[in-house]
Amino acid sequence: MSIILRLEMIKEKTSFGEIATIVSNAGGDIVAIDVIKEEKSTTVRDISINVNDETKQQRIIHSLEQLPGVTIKHTSDRTFLIHSGGKIHVKSKVEVDNREEMSRVYTPEVARVCEAIDEDPDLAYQFTIKKNSVAVISDGTAVLGLGNIKPEAAMPVMEGKAMLFKQFANVDAFPICIEPQSAEDTIKLIKALSPSFGGINLEDIASPQCFDIEQQLKKELNIPVFHDDQHGTAIVALAGLLNALKLVDKKMEECKIVICGIGAAGIAITNMVLKAGGKNVIGVDIEGALTRKQTYNNESWNSIAQKTNPHDETGELYDVIHKADVFIGVSAPGILTQNDVKQMAKDPIVFALANPHPEITPDEAKPYAKVMATGRSDYPNQVNNVLCFPGIFRGALDCRASDINEDMKLAAAKAIASTIDTEELNEDYIIPSVFNENIVPAIRDAVIEAAKSSGVARKQ
Amino acid sequence: MSIILRLEMIKEKTSFGEIATIVSNAGGDIVAIDVIKEEKSTTVRDISINVNDETKQQRIIHSLEQLPGVTIKHTSDRTFLIHSGGKIHVKSKVEVDNREEMSRVYTPEVARVCEAIDEDPDLAYQFTIKKNSVAVISDGTAVLGLGNIKPEAAMPVMEGKAMLFKQFANVDAFPICIEPQSAEDTIKLIKALSPSFGGINLEDIASPQCFDIEQQLKKELNIPVFHDDQHGTAIVALAGLLNALKLVDKKMEECKIVICGIGAAGIAITNMVLKAGGKNVIGVDIEGALTRKQTYNNESWNSIAQKTNPHDETGELYDVIHKADVFIGVSAPGILTQNDVKQMAKDPIVFALANPHPEITPDEAKPYAKVMATGRSDYPNQVNNVLCFPGIFRGALDCRASDINEDMKLAAAKAIASTIDTEELNEDYIIPSVFNENIVPAIRDAVIEAAKSSGVARKQ
Repeated sequence: MSIILRLEMIKEKTSFGEIATIVSNAGGDIVAIDVIKEEKSTTVRDISINVNDETKQQRIIHSLEQLPGVTIKHTSDRTFLIHSGGKIHVKSKVEVDNREEMSRVYTPEVARVCEAIDEDPDLAYQFTIKKNSVAVISDGTAVLGLGNIKPEAAMPVMEGKAMLFKQFANVDAFPICIEPQSAEDTIKLIKALSPSFGGINLEDIASPQCFDIEQQLKKELNIPVFHDDQHGTAIVALAGLLNALKLVDKKMEECKIVICGIGAAGIAITNMVLKAGGKNVIGVDIEGALTRKQTYNNESWNSIAQKTNPHDETGELYDVIHKADVFIGVSAPGILTQNDVKQMAKDPIVFALANPHPEITPDEAKPYAKVMATGRSDYPNQVNNVLCFPGIFRGALDCRASDINEDMKLAAAKAIASTIDTEELNEDYIIPSVFNENIVPAIRDAVIEAAKSSGVARKQ
Repeated sequence: MSIILRLEMIKEKTSFGEIATIVSNAGGDIVAIDVIKEEKSTTVRDISINVNDETKQQRIIHSLEQLPGVTIKHTSDRTFLIHSGGKIHVKSKVEVDNREEMSRVYTPEVARVCEAIDEDPDLAYQFTIKKNSVAVISDGTAVLGLGNIKPEAAMPVMEGKAMLFKQFANVDAFPICIEPQSAEDTIKLIKALSPSFGGINLEDIASPQCFDIEQQLKKELNIPVFHDDQHGTAIVALAGLLNALKLVDKKMEECKIVICGIGAAGIAITNMVLKAGGKNVIGVDIEGALTRKQTYNNESWNSIAQKTNPHDETGELYDVIHKADVFIGVSAPGILTQNDVKQMAKDPIVFALANPHPEITPDEAKPYAKVMATGRSDYPNQVNNVLCFPGIFRGALDCRASDINEDMKLAAAKAIASTIDTEELNEDYIIPSVFNENIVPAIRDAVIEAAKSSGVARKQ
């Protein structure tokens, strides 16, 4: 294995020879040195070192840290190496080898294609990348668990997303991280650049701006707009829930479903569960169970309270969890206790999706929960939105949908659930693997069908 | 050769059988039919036809046009076919085959890369596409000779540009066509999305907004911003002029240089010629020779008048062309007469760059002009900005330049000129071919050198 250390060395206090000796004594082999910055009294160098195990790597780093006049600016391990130079590139579909070909793809011949599109903008879907392109747009305000980071720093996530779009669904996605600004300005920006794309995937935008941005853009644009943090998570959670209910032989309509954490993801999950037939759904947040009898400062809570909690239950999570069939948490670590799970109805379904630390660990929940899902890859039943976004955009692009609407989202959830046969279904397998090759085609077909029947497909 | 015709057929008036007969009788072979839209009284179909020559193709189209109830919506020839589905795509650099790899390029491992960049934004150049990416941005307001067209319709040009960026200089360029809006809003938009890119290539933006947009962005951004229509043309024109002057053995400083058409390109050419040592430069536009003694409504004319026309010459083009050594036109067809060329100094140099119809045709000019260049590919000495933009951005990205400044532009012009050896230089070969593989490396090296010595290179 290979690591790269970026070292800042104070010339008076240390020498490269000293460093080489330390690396060598600790079992490393220096294979390359790049001078990054050379100043009068300091020098910054990238040292590439081959080592054959993690312990030696740690020993090298530790020894160098002790050395006076040396600062380790950063360490590139395999994760950093795979990111070197970025993870995607732009390629031409045809090579231009001579003047004739160049005149076709560029001036003067290209003008005829431009004119045709100018007369009939629908032709953009035939003669430009609009047919297959999605902009992955973030303002970096709510990136993973990191919160508000610089747009440059959000790029690795969006590039990763673009890779997955390509690999799983052959969608040409391009990452665009923008400076955080008012929701109004972000809407204006995305509207202005939308002509170039066939769809907009919003990503890692803090709430409540994410709601306004998505809603307004859905209204104003004629291409699909999809905030993955909300709907991707909700669709995959619903897919898991559909399979979990099959397993415990309960009906959505008859279940008491407690959703904890009514932020961006919680609202989307609540809406999906209602769309899928849920009747007795109760939202819980820091003010306890949301009820229509109260008025909240948070507009989206009022809206959720209006359509949920039919029996006007009040109190904290530990009050309303009593006799619940389903718990879905998108809130905070450790919020659900073992005792809470014991209070639930027979065969409790617990989706503890807070990441990386769930509302209750599978180890604590498992003695009492019948089915358990988390957001983590190291437990069974990971609610992972990679299961959804490639297929849902593949379907939307293929039927040239003007929107990704609720019908299409529900169809996607059912399609994901259906990739696990009834015989295969078990407590540790309610959600398929992202590497299951049937998923994208299944979602695609279901989404196209739903787009057509709901009237948003523009291509038959 | 293959063509695709999109036909709208009124069902009552015609049948597919009739169409098939006509195509067949005219010598075509129908190889595919796609139903595009089926309505009660009309149907739209794409008919793919193999034909073996252009005449037969024309005959088929002509016959179908005569047929009652048939409208040809459009015709796809090779140019349209090469544009089918767009000309570029996004590719991953690494395949993600298993969960471990996915966790590295996406969550959770990617978070470490995000954090590192958040702490030190310079690392974006190491771990994201910023290292090698350029946004090709247009608002579609001045596309080729087509003028103001829809942003969707400008995409084929920008995609073509992205292809050429890749092929000639391995730059990952991505086309973004935006809705036309105020210069202020365009500036705001480009600023907001600049964190994702290593450079901004502005393209086909109408004047005078293009000046404000470029100037303001150059001031506010720390990545290079380059309006190719202005500077690309100016750099290549200057490269040609440098070689033309060698050929006639004249010095820039001693020449009378008339520049006709003081729009975006004319201003950039004037500035480049001054930068390269020109002293007696005269700008001419519809109000005649620009002189500091007059005040114009057009601010950029006043600015140009201040630094040109040292002898305060007045009058029309035919007045000031007298004894001029060089004419450079970026104006309108037919503006320069044969008689004007006769009035020029010995060994006249005529760059008639109006496109597609030059200020004077080479056939008219050639008996009197010693060296002639145009913007057209069907005459020798084409001033083609494909010669410049790939190399100049390659250089700027490689030394992580914060700007593309005048020194770098002059260096690029000299580098282009230098790719033709003195022995090769002749009247029909003052500008190299875009397929000359020495050009990009020559520009790159010269541009890096100039960036370093002018203090804008951030990487040594």
